[in-house]
Amino acid sequence: MTVSKIDQLENLQTILKQFKDLDETMTHYSDMLSLAGWDQQVKAPSKGKAYFSKVRGTLSTELFRLGTSDQMRRLLDALSQPEIQGQLDEPTKAAVREHKREYDKNKKIPETLHKEFTIHTANARNVWEEARKDNNFEKFRPTLERTVNFIRQYAELYGYEKHPYDALLDNYEPGLTVEQLDGIFSTLRAKTVKLLQRIRNSSDQPRDVFEGSFDVVQQEKFNLFLLPLLGYDLDAGRLDVTAHPFACTINVGDVRITTRYFDNDPKSSLFATIHEAGHAIYEQGVNPDYEGSVISGGVSLGIHESQSRFLENMVGRSEAFWERYLDDYKSFFPGKFDNVSLRDFYRSVNIVSPSFIRVEADEVTYNLHVMIRYEIEKGLVDGTVEVKDLPKLWNEKMREYLGVEPPSDSSGVLQDVHWSYGAFGYFPTYSLGNLYSAQLRNTILKQFPDFYDIIRRGEFATIREWLREQIHTHGSVYLPSDLIERVTGEPLNPEYLVRYLQEKYSDVYRLQD
Amino acid sequence: MTVSKIDQLENLQTILKQFKDLDETMTHYSDMLSLAGWDQQVKAPSKGKAYFSKVRGTLSTELFRLGTSDQMRRLLDALSQPEIQGQLDEPTKAAVREHKREYDKNKKIPETLHKEFTIHTANARNVWEEARKDNNFEKFRPTLERTVNFIRQYAELYGYEKHPYDALLDNYEPGLTVEQLDGIFSTLRAKTVKLLQRIRNSSDQPRDVFEGSFDVVQQEKFNLFLLPLLGYDLDAGRLDVTAHPFACTINVGDVRITTRYFDNDPKSSLFATIHEAGHAIYEQGVNPDYEGSVISGGVSLGIHESQSRFLENMVGRSEAFWERYLDDYKSFFPGKFDNVSLRDFYRSVNIVSPSFIRVEADEVTYNLHVMIRYEIEKGLVDGTVEVKDLPKLWNEKMREYLGVEPPSDSSGVLQDVHWSYGAFGYFPTYSLGNLYSAQLRNTILKQFPDFYDIIRRGEFATIREWLREQIHTHGSVYLPSDLIERVTGEPLNPEYLVRYLQEKYSDVYRLQD
Repeated sequence: MTVSKIDQLENLQTILKQFKDLDETMTHYSDMLSLAGWDQQVKAPSKGKAYFSKVRGTLSTELFRLGTSDQMRRLLDALSQPEIQGQLDEPTKAAVREHKREYDKNKKIPETLHKEFTIHTANARNVWEEARKDNNFEKFRPTLERTVNFIRQYAELYGYEKHPYDALLDNYEPGLTVEQLDGIFSTLRAKTVKLLQRIRNSSDQPRDVFEGSFDVVQQEKFNLFLLPLLGYDLDAGRLDVTAHPFACTINVGDVRITTRYFDNDPKSSLFATIHEAGHAIYEQGVNPDYEGSVISGGVSLGIHESQSRFLENMVGRSEAFWERYLDDYKSFFPGKFDNVSLRDFYRSVNIVSPSFIRVEADEVTYNLHVMIRYEIEKGLVDGTVEVKDLPKLWNEKMREYLGVEPPSDSSGVLQDVHWSYGAFGYFPTYSLGNLYSAQLRNTILKQFPDFYDIIRRGEFATIREWLREQIHTHGSVYLPSDLIERVTGEPLNPEYLVRYLQEKYSDVYRLQD
Repeated sequence: MTVSKIDQLENLQTILKQFKDLDETMTHYSDMLSLAGWDQQVKAPSKGKAYFSKVRGTLSTELFRLGTSDQMRRLLDALSQPEIQGQLDEPTKAAVREHKREYDKNKKIPETLHKEFTIHTANARNVWEEARKDNNFEKFRPTLERTVNFIRQYAELYGYEKHPYDALLDNYEPGLTVEQLDGIFSTLRAKTVKLLQRIRNSSDQPRDVFEGSFDVVQQEKFNLFLLPLLGYDLDAGRLDVTAHPFACTINVGDVRITTRYFDNDPKSSLFATIHEAGHAIYEQGVNPDYEGSVISGGVSLGIHESQSRFLENMVGRSEAFWERYLDDYKSFFPGKFDNVSLRDFYRSVNIVSPSFIRVEADEVTYNLHVMIRYEIEKGLVDGTVEVKDLPKLWNEKMREYLGVEPPSDSSGVLQDVHWSYGAFGYFPTYSLGNLYSAQLRNTILKQFPDFYDIIRRGEFATIREWLREQIHTHGSVYLPSDLIERVTGEPLNPEYLVRYLQEKYSDVYRLQD
């Protein structure tokens, strides 16, 4: 008995060592993929960019091979046995869970289909770009039809219990379902449309205080002034410039962000920077012991977006925040805000204005943009919507939910890149982030009843520490739904976002009850 | 018969396809290693740097594994058969040759030895840094003794015909031998020491025209002005700042260089930039069809250095070059060179001054620094020199060849990083570059009798086109010795460098015959 137990133990140690080596190799490849992606967008010279796609293809293929290898299967089988699971620590259990989910999913897709889809989407992106440039949906239609066919096949192969779209949602937010989203979105839509109506009817509309031109160098200097105060560690990151802002993790000591500058719209770089900092602070805060493992990154797009939206909207667009920093901001742009009060400024950065473009949408209308995409995607996947009807359907929904209709397909159904690369099921995570962030805010307000005083004193570090302990440090150890329940004491509840928006915008727009 | 031939052909096509796939995968990994190395030195934030070493370790290990795999052996065996070789085009033959050399070398080293050596050198670098900082050779001695032991083992395992050092030279300059170098260096040393003596005795010493402080921003602007005029394509490269200048190839469309700036020494960034541009123009000029293959880079360190030294010294430090660009240079530093004539400037950038530090050495004394290292390395490898005697030996040779003695081991025997990572056999390639460049210059002067008029008119592009056709475009297709014979019509001949130096410095120092 004793000998056998030692044998088992030795065997387990060997298996664990092999699993950790494989996990580390895959994480290193994945980190190199991130670096290559970052460099391609930020630093690579124009003539060198195309080659990066090939190199990334080679690394992706190798990553796929390792993740679906016989060795991986053997290790996952061994480590999934109930009597072994009991002996694993939480981080190892989570790493097994993450690799197993990927393995199971990837194994369901025949290699030929995977290759066909990869080639198709690489091409589809160019077709989409052309179609958008020419404002010609018909040009994109046949390609999108093929994409939808692929997506339907994928959903069937992945498998699902109730709705094929569930299989796709699970790619981006493990465990999320249509049933759940339908419930959440119907509450949120009804209340948002009503709130929006009241906002539009308000007789006290805020004025835009950002007039004229704002030196781009000064905009960047303010961002670099603000970032450390928000808790973004510039010794473990960088701020660069790209057309589309993003955050990129190379490792826990190297989480980079980008922003963009418009001299006639300083709000754009300011809030994009705060938003990306929210993502990056999450990743900088992961337990360094998880370095080199699949669990060393944020757990899902939804939780990620909750961190960026919380920082951008609930902190960065709060009156308390600007009570602390408006004088600093003014000092970077002498003469620009001489007659602007705190109240004017606060109201200006929270103007609600239904527009055609999702990425420019305000806090109130943003989720309506997401819902339109969700409903269309769901219909395309279950066959109740056809690609050819999209322009008409899009515009109808825009009119119904937002009260505006885009003047062209380029600023309508063709505006987002996601469909071109087959990312169906991604959009809902944006709203999920908003929902999570409001629910977290509610918990924070209970934990820190003086939350806005803390912000007002410029002591966001206190809140960041709490977020780190509660969320960031865990990386991907807990599944998103488990994490949110652990931290807030209840499952996702859309009421918190509804209430937050009603309270805030009743104040900003001085709405009557 | 016919069927069998078709079978063979199909078989060859299959083997070629597999070989090219493997070659491409390895090249992609190698390019990612370059990118990671570049980023670690140039862009990574301080807290992220350490992780890069681990990721690079993972990629290196995989690269080693692929290069010594059974699949590689099988493919190389098949493609090395004489009847198959006859059917291969030159680039493929060269790729087979390059992979075979690596395979054969690596297979000779037992994996345990390779691992021990890797761990030893990783540690040795830190020991060397400490020892240099503390000016304490004894601190480095035991480590260097172990390194030399490793190096001797490697030389024996690699194998050699006449001298164990040949086995090491071959790592950096395929085919180069002690016999060849001894002959070349004895000629070069005798004539250089004599020339140096005459220079030191000259009664007409040039004056240093670089006085005071030079705005670093302006220095960088001039570099960016000059680079395209030299033929460096900024759309296929970048200029960044690092402590030690270097060139780095990601792919043929992305060859990056770095430089460093001192406000009291603008020559440093200027000539470092021209030097690195020489390396980069070589790599930017490789036939784009070789993309994704081992042959897509320059063929050897010696040929590489010939391109950088030619551009830096024979073009960038020529009087004709400054006849074209001195007015431009002056315009970047208003008031700094008001009383400086072309002649003064030209003489100033060619001041010969024996110093302790190799990397700061002028054209005349540079090779003497290299020879000292060569003689010491050769002795360490064949056992006629012992590590404990190095400080004494170093200083003796400095006195003998250069007439100066370093005031400390830090500025003497401890100055170079190379030995700390076990790079024995590397130094001679620096001189080889100088020798090749002078021999190439001789051919260019025959091809373009108006060479200096071309430079004077700022038409270096003409020369670069010739270099591209003759050298750059071939990548690693021809072995260095074959290439130099193809282009210049004869094997390496040290007379050209001797003559060039004598002519140039007779003029700069107005030497009497």
